[in-house]
This record gives sequence, C-alpha cells and structure tokens, in this order.
Amino acid sequence: MILGYSKNELLGAKQKLEKYIHRTPVLQSRLINEVAGAQLFFKCENFQKVGAFKMRGAMHKLLCLSEKEKSFGVVTHSSGNFGQALALSAQLLNISATVIMPSNAPQVKKDAVAGYGAHIIECSPSIEAREESLRLFLLSHQATFCHPYNDENVILGNSTAAQELFEDYKLDDIIAPVGGGGLMSGTALAAKYFSPQTNIYGAEPIAANDAYKSLRDAKIYPSISPNTIADGLLTALGNKTYPVLKELLTEILLVNDEDILKSMKLIWERMKIIVEPSAAISLAVVLKNPKKFENRKVGLILSGGNVDLKKYFD
Amino acid sequence: MILGYSKNELLGAKQKLEKYIHRTPVLQSRLINEVAGAQLFFKCENFQKVGAFKMRGAMHKLLCLSEKEKSFGVVTHSSGNFGQALALSAQLLNISATVIMPSNAPQVKKDAVAGYGAHIIECSPSIEAREESLRLFLLSHQATFCHPYNDENVILGNSTAAQELFEDYKLDDIIAPVGGGGLMSGTALAAKYFSPQTNIYGAEPIAANDAYKSLRDAKIYPSISPNTIADGLLTALGNKTYPVLKELLTEILLVNDEDILKSMKLIWERMKIIVEPSAAISLAVVLKNPKKFENRKVGLILSGGNVDLKKYFD
Repeated sequence: MILGYSKNELLGAKQKLEKYIHRTPVLQSRLINEVAGAQLFFKCENFQKVGAFKMRGAMHKLLCLSEKEKSFGVVTHSSGNFGQALALSAQLLNISATVIMPSNAPQVKKDAVAGYGAHIIECSPSIEAREESLRLFLLSHQATFCHPYNDENVILGNSTAAQELFEDYKLDDIIAPVGGGGLMSGTALAAKYFSPQTNIYGAEPIAANDAYKSLRDAKIYPSISPNTIADGLLTALGNKTYPVLKELLTEILLVNDEDILKSMKLIWERMKIIVEPSAAISLAVVLKNPKKFENRKVGLILSGGNVDLKKYFD
Repeated sequence: MILGYSKNELLGAKQKLEKYIHRTPVLQSRLINEVAGAQLFFKCENFQKVGAFKMRGAMHKLLCLSEKEKSFGVVTHSSGNFGQALALSAQLLNISATVIMPSNAPQVKKDAVAGYGAHIIECSPSIEAREESLRLFLLSHQATFCHPYNDENVILGNSTAAQELFEDYKLDDIIAPVGGGGLMSGTALAAKYFSPQTNIYGAEPIAANDAYKSLRDAKIYPSISPNTIADGLLTALGNKTYPVLKELLTEILLVNDEDILKSMKLIWERMKIIVEPSAAISLAVVLKNPKKFENRKVGLILSGGNVDLKKYFD
C-alpha cells in the first residue's frame, strides 16, 4: 500500500473505465525532440472525451457509487472541464447530475454542461458563494458531492492516463501539471507502482506556485489571486492530494507564462494538435531545464485541449 | 489500365513510400458525425511529414528518378508545402534540391526550405517571373524539374493517402480538395481501383472555381485572381490532372469561405487538431449538402495543417 492506495485499486480503476473512456494516443515529434534534446512521449488527453483527462476521474467516481447513491444523483462545483466530465459521465450512466457554476462562466461551458443533461445552479463568482450554494443544495438533496480533485476515487481514475503510458513505454521521467493536484496525484501513484525508477515532476506556473510552496514548507498554502494563462492550474492542493505529492514527487518545477505560451505554440505548430496552456506547461518545464532532461525518455501528460478559439474565428 | 495508370503502379508507389512517410491516422468525431448526419472518416495528412500530403508526391517523384537524374539534382517552384516536401525528400535521399520561391513568401517558409538543406532562388511574385527563373536555371543545370502536381509520379504518390484509407474502411463517398488537382487525381485513381463503388467528390472554393468550370465546359480554365482563405487551392488544373478529374469525378462541389471557416472551427474545437482551410473544405462540402451525404460513410482527406498561427501567438 502506498498512502492508502493499493496496486489492485489502480488496476481496478483502469479496468472499470476501459469501456467508458478513450485510450488516448501517445504522440512523438522528431523536431520537438531535437529542440528539447530529449525523447518526449506526449499522452494526449486533449483527445479524451470532453477534451480533458477529467473524464477519467469523474467517470471512475460515479462507477464507485452504490446503486442507492446513484439513485440520489450527484453534485459538483466547477466552472470548467470537471463539470462537463461529470455531466457526461452521469448521462452515460443514467444518473442525475447537478453542477454549480459561477454566473460569469462562459455561455459555451454552460451550454455544454446543459447539453449533457445536467442541471445547472448559478452562483456568484466567489469561493464562499459556491460553498454556500453547495451547502444549501445538500440540505435539501441526498445527492453525493463529487469534488473535482480532492477525492480518492477521482485520483484513482486520473491515475489511468499514466498507467496507459507506462504500459507502452519505459520512461526515465514523467511530468504532469499541478493545479489542485488531482492529476498529479494519480500520475505519481501510477509511477510508483508501475515504473518505480521513474522521476516524478510537477509543472506549476510561477504566478500560481502555491503547491511549490506547500511542499517546500510542508503545509498547504491557499492559492491567492493567481494570475496565469494556465487557467486550469489556479486551484490549491487539498488534504487528499497534498500528502501524495509531498510523499511521492521528485520536485515541482516552475515556469512563467512566456515559457508556457512558447511551448503551446511549438505543440500547435509542429504536432498539429490543440492543447490548452495548462497542458503545454509540461513541455515548458522540459525546455526550461535542458540539463535535467538531456537524452532522457520523458512522458508528458497533455491534460486537455479546451481553449477559447475566439481569437481565431470571431 | 485507367487513363494510363495501372493498379500495380499505385500499389508500387505505396510500397516504395512506406519507409519514408507516416501512415497517418484516421480520426472520427461523434459530435461532428451528429452535426453532419453522416459517418465521417478523416484521413489526417496534417500529421504527415512537413504537415501536408505533399510529402507523398514529392518523395515518390524522387524515388522514381534514375541514379543519373538523382546525381544532377532537382528543382521546383513553390511558395508553399511542395517546396518543403521536395526539400525534405531530397535531403533524406541525399539529392541536391533547388526551390524557386517568390520574394514575398513568408520568411518562415523560406527558413523551413533552407533548413532542409535546399537552395533557394528568389523571383518576383508572378507566374511569368517564376517560369523565367526556372527556364534560366535549367539552361545552366541538368536538374530534373518536379512540378508540384502536374506529374504522373507525383499523382501516384498522392494516391497513397486514399489507398491507406480504403485499406481500413469501406466508404460510400470520398472527398478531397481541388487546387491543381494533384491530390484529387491520386484520390480518384485510388478509389477507382480499390473501391469502385465509392462516389468521388472534389471540394473547391466558389471564389476559385476554375476546376468546376473546366469540368463543366470540358476545357482547362486558368485560375484568375482567386480570392479565398483556402490558399492551397488557388492553382489551375494541368494537362495531367484535368483528364483524370474529367473522367473519374462524380462531381465538384463548391463552398464559400464562410462555410470553410465554420468547418475549420468545428474541427479545431471538437477534434483538437489543427487543419488548414484547404483541408477543412471537405467537411464544409458535407455540411453544405446534408441530403447528399445523409447516413453515408464518407472519407475526407485532410490535406494539411500548415496555418499561420500568428493571430494566436503574436
């Protein structure tokens, strides 16, 4: 057992999810390898359902509910990918879902959640308002609250992306982005069980470096006024993700928005795939630390591809 | 034999190319299928080397040269993907290559051609200046001229994209974009030999509809002042491509730039891949003709992914 997670639980998550999610492709780019001076393996969760790894955690969470819990439905708060992932997962399993969204969330995201048949409750765009909406909802409903990342079954679901990667490749290092730590926790657990010699790096924006500080000082810092283009990485660690990262991570590496944008451009231009800034950050970390990754085989979890394409098309 | 091309020549092209090009993936999108009311199979030549199908024709042309011809080198004129494709192919085969490019070609394209080790000759941006530069070059060099599309071996090379698609899927219809007709000719020949029941459609911008008119009136029209976002489709048919299209095409279908942009957005957003306008046109044709493609299995050749990403990143 590692921090309460067994190898069988990880394998079980992978098996349960198989028929509900895509096994996403792993891409390589000769040119980017040359630029990086390393051999990079990109795990393309931008091709996952709803365009992000969040589908893995959300679906696994629902698959672990009892029949009784399923009958009462589920609720989450999310302005982004997790809301969509939970809504689609619930639809596929015929479970009622409610998503608490800030009133200023983009209409396109509200439409997507509604399109998957979930109920939307709007709240003011603050953490307090969100918590209050959730509290009130749970007073009158027996629904199960599904936290977007601070949840063991979500973490187990997220671990399956790295599990798939380790099945196919022997890697010296693996890198995943760190926001609330849900993807990073799953990735780290998969590495420890299935590729124990692999170094495990977190990639975090300098302007939202709460996880970096949390591991350094051994206490959970809140994420205060983060301001970065990597809008999927604004959240703080939780009490389920912090211990996993603290125990298992080799190191968190920081990059700035310019680094992230440069890497995103490289991926778009050379690999012809669309990834979001929060995904490109792992490549940014490699390019920023050429010595560390020189000639190594490095896995990078491209977490998603949901970007606002308005600049191009409107 | 169909129009001078034998089945063995097509198969031979495929076999020769195998070790030099990528077998590109075929992607599907549940959501786009719903929007289209058809089952679509996207052949992703945006993932081909140099980001475009042009690599197939260029490489096959070079593989068909005699050793003596190879020793004298090759020359082409191109402001776009074919120049890069010929330069890379020549580099891989250790053949000297010269690319005549208009002086106003984007620096990034000149850099790419030079990066593959080809010589660049700049000329004024007109067809006359280009032809004159080529004439002068050939007066003093024994190099073989490689036309970007009006060439049997280029057409045979291009046929391999559709050949791969027909190996994997049984299709009711196939669609490819029409510029000079090189990709369309190869696609049509592959369909006739390997999937004779399949309808063969060309996709052309209304604002560059010279091929449409050429087939309608049975004579090759020049492409006069074409003005479309699909900048890979500005050229006119040649005497090698016209007869193939005239004989084998079911129909050329026209769409406008708004249709093309809408389809390009749909592909970027939903498939998370970058395709150029000239590639998105095939989807535009499906969406514009819902009755024609209703419930059918349709193959679409996504010709390439080389777009200028400046809008996003500068």
